[in-house]
Amino acid sequence: MHKQILDVSKRRGIMYPSFEIYGGVGGFYDYGPIGSRIKKNIEDLVRRYYIIEEGCFEVECPTLSPEAVWVASGHVSSFSDLMTECLKCGEPYRADHLIEEHTGKSCEASDMSAMDELVKEYKIKCPKCGGGLDRVYSYNLMFQTFIGPGKNKEVAYLRPETAQTTYLGFRRLWEIARKKLPFGVIQIGRSFRNEISPRQGMIRLREFNQAEIQFFVEPDGKYSPRFDTVSAIKAKVIDKEGRESSLTLKEAVEKGIVKLQMIAYFLGRSLQLFKEMGINPEALRLRQHKDEERAFYSTDTWDIEYMSSVFGKIELVGVSDRTDYDLSAHMKLSKQDMTVNYEGRKFIPHVVEVAYGIDRPFYCVIESCYREEGDRVFFSFPEDIAPYKAGVFPLVGKDGLPEKAQQVFDLLKKEGLYVFYDEGGSIGKRYARADEVGVPICVTIDYETLEDDTVTLRDRDTKKQDRVKIDGLCKAIVR
Amino acid sequence: MHKQILDVSKRRGIMYPSFEIYGGVGGFYDYGPIGSRIKKNIEDLVRRYYIIEEGCFEVECPTLSPEAVWVASGHVSSFSDLMTECLKCGEPYRADHLIEEHTGKSCEASDMSAMDELVKEYKIKCPKCGGGLDRVYSYNLMFQTFIGPGKNKEVAYLRPETAQTTYLGFRRLWEIARKKLPFGVIQIGRSFRNEISPRQGMIRLREFNQAEIQFFVEPDGKYSPRFDTVSAIKAKVIDKEGRESSLTLKEAVEKGIVKLQMIAYFLGRSLQLFKEMGINPEALRLRQHKDEERAFYSTDTWDIEYMSSVFGKIELVGVSDRTDYDLSAHMKLSKQDMTVNYEGRKFIPHVVEVAYGIDRPFYCVIESCYREEGDRVFFSFPEDIAPYKAGVFPLVGKDGLPEKAQQVFDLLKKEGLYVFYDEGGSIGKRYARADEVGVPICVTIDYETLEDDTVTLRDRDTKKQDRVKIDGLCKAIVR
Repeated sequence: MHKQILDVSKRRGIMYPSFEIYGGVGGFYDYGPIGSRIKKNIEDLVRRYYIIEEGCFEVECPTLSPEAVWVASGHVSSFSDLMTECLKCGEPYRADHLIEEHTGKSCEASDMSAMDELVKEYKIKCPKCGGGLDRVYSYNLMFQTFIGPGKNKEVAYLRPETAQTTYLGFRRLWEIARKKLPFGVIQIGRSFRNEISPRQGMIRLREFNQAEIQFFVEPDGKYSPRFDTVSAIKAKVIDKEGRESSLTLKEAVEKGIVKLQMIAYFLGRSLQLFKEMGINPEALRLRQHKDEERAFYSTDTWDIEYMSSVFGKIELVGVSDRTDYDLSAHMKLSKQDMTVNYEGRKFIPHVVEVAYGIDRPFYCVIESCYREEGDRVFFSFPEDIAPYKAGVFPLVGKDGLPEKAQQVFDLLKKEGLYVFYDEGGSIGKRYARADEVGVPICVTIDYETLEDDTVTLRDRDTKKQDRVKIDGLCKAIVR
Repeated sequence: MHKQILDVSKRRGIMYPSFEIYGGVGGFYDYGPIGSRIKKNIEDLVRRYYIIEEGCFEVECPTLSPEAVWVASGHVSSFSDLMTECLKCGEPYRADHLIEEHTGKSCEASDMSAMDELVKEYKIKCPKCGGGLDRVYSYNLMFQTFIGPGKNKEVAYLRPETAQTTYLGFRRLWEIARKKLPFGVIQIGRSFRNEISPRQGMIRLREFNQAEIQFFVEPDGKYSPRFDTVSAIKAKVIDKEGRESSLTLKEAVEKGIVKLQMIAYFLGRSLQLFKEMGINPEALRLRQHKDEERAFYSTDTWDIEYMSSVFGKIELVGVSDRTDYDLSAHMKLSKQDMTVNYEGRKFIPHVVEVAYGIDRPFYCVIESCYREEGDRVFFSFPEDIAPYKAGVFPLVGKDGLPEKAQQVFDLLKKEGLYVFYDEGGSIGKRYARADEVGVPICVTIDYETLEDDTVTLRDRDTKKQDRVKIDGLCKAIVR
């Protein structure tokens, strides 16, 4: 299936590797004309959930930030992977991945010398050229550059996450929120990780898109007044000991598996969101971070993973208790006060973070919605996610039908709808082309239209055809 | 006026300098909770014009690209400013700006040695510390970094414009467009210029947002079938010789001042767009690039400039004939064929580019819409640009009014509208707060509401109040 999805993606402009004419560079993808619409719709759906429904603020901060930000956050000292390079051809490898691939076992070693030992013990060579491997060393995953020219230039990094840039503005956001807790702040934008050797298509990108939400709360305020709206959602749950179960979110909280009700709430909201995007809910599971993988300051962290038939497990969102760790760190380095006086107490707010990728859910939408029915290939995108609301076709290219179809097309455009016009080839071919990019409705203008101002609506999923008046067309399309 | 705008911007979360807690870095701004909504609305309006109405494709490409891209485009060799630094304090200066500030005349010198001569002749010292100045040298404005680790890492740059990254995908886009000309491709996203010493707030950013549209056309196809829809628009025009006149676009084309009808068309569309954003049309003028400022390959290039009371002239969009220059350059370096066979001819398509900034129009919207009426301060944002569609207020915080107001609030949110709820302080204070961020309509729930399900609508600009049924509220708000 993967090959077919990639083929249609490239051919029809969903997504394709960047810089192809210069031989490509791993970890970069373009969103094409169809993909960019789907991505935009995914982002707007996230905005609806978090800005309209949850009442969050949105901010947009630079992706390039001075060094101090990443010193405070800990990324300069410890956002790194252990790597080795071939002494002969120079090919770089993530040391743990190389050891795992060679031994077939998960790599238990976590420091450089232990990994060096394993490379020696198993006589691991460069998989590409057979050359010997250099010593394992620590490699920081941030892209470094300099702001400003000459002697006064400052070290800067492309952000590896949006979260820190949101925290920097906390004092302003606190004032804008009129000094009340809780409040949430979403940031949707690019982040960057200079991966050593990305080989998983859109799943591991060096430049990627995120939607990260920071909820600033009282230290003992990690619950949601709307938990009952999601508490009955049932999900596959894997706890930090690796135990699997199928539980409602209510049960997961009551049994103490999910420690904070607020985390359970946003896991529930995320399940709703992914379903609404068109991601197969059966392929999703909640996974708690193990003690050793969780950040030391966090009391609890959960991911939602999608089980892909191509890439295996894909992390789509992380929901975590970040406590007052980040604000405290910035307060310490910047000497700016991050404490608040609220309801008679003075404290540094805690943060519960809901951190979505955008590119990964995008891929999972594509994979989940791909359908083959005999010769027919289509994407069953939900209407709010589909790249176009409708296609408009004259049945034939003569007898005034194209002119009438143009009028209908103009009418829909005036309503601000993303629609397209197609008069090339047989009507069957045009349906097939629309199916291939998941357009939910095709509107055909035929001879009857000239007589009674009705058009044919053809449904993508059922292939059923209906006639409606042009008058009621908008309502029939935006259901 | 500028100080008031900046004050309200910071206080209410429209925009503010980034990294304030670390002392700030010139050329970086955050969009706050209010600004991010306005910016999003501006971008969506651009999308409506170019994707829905002009039928363009949208793409999203990486901001980080390997060196070859910028070698081909000419940016590695010549995207630079001449600069000097203080030998004592290290402060960097753009040499031409420094000479202009010192002499009060525009700097005619354009090479390093001529500028060195002027620095000597006028005995120019560091304005900051009085120290001597170093020799003038050429400084490339791209941010450089490396992709990948170790010995095999590749030089890369943050893109200084989106356009080149759109061109890279031309072969794919040509297929997606089903091998027909013309077609347009818009890209909205971040770009980066490592300015020597940016000092103009949002007007000269090191990380900025663009919306650049590339129209791929036949070499002799630089006209628009819809020119008559804009030809009657009258504008202030400054031609390349500096002659000013007030002309319709039709006259400007007929007199040969604007050489290409397609350029005139998009100047007209841009005037419509800026007006719809809320930018004062009286402050706009069309300016033709002088022969010496225009790229050597371009037959004609025009800007639309906004005359700001604070910053002077601000370039909002550039419309230019880029010929086959860029595609040819990438063809030469990449050895990939960029020619097309179209209607019996084989050629490299030409490009007409419409290149918008986003941050600058954003600032001009803010400046244009700022109003002071006695004590009252408000922004007269157009409804499609305003950060919220409406505010919802209970008249008082008791007697069931907050509960009723919440119901109304929920009703509007269910329609997907960006609205906010406020029950803090007197109703007058709440109107004033809504005015301050340009909310067009306030909805007040009072005792009458409990009786007859009507609410008060208060109009921002006229302060007029109307009563409407809750039933018809959505329609009354989304006018």
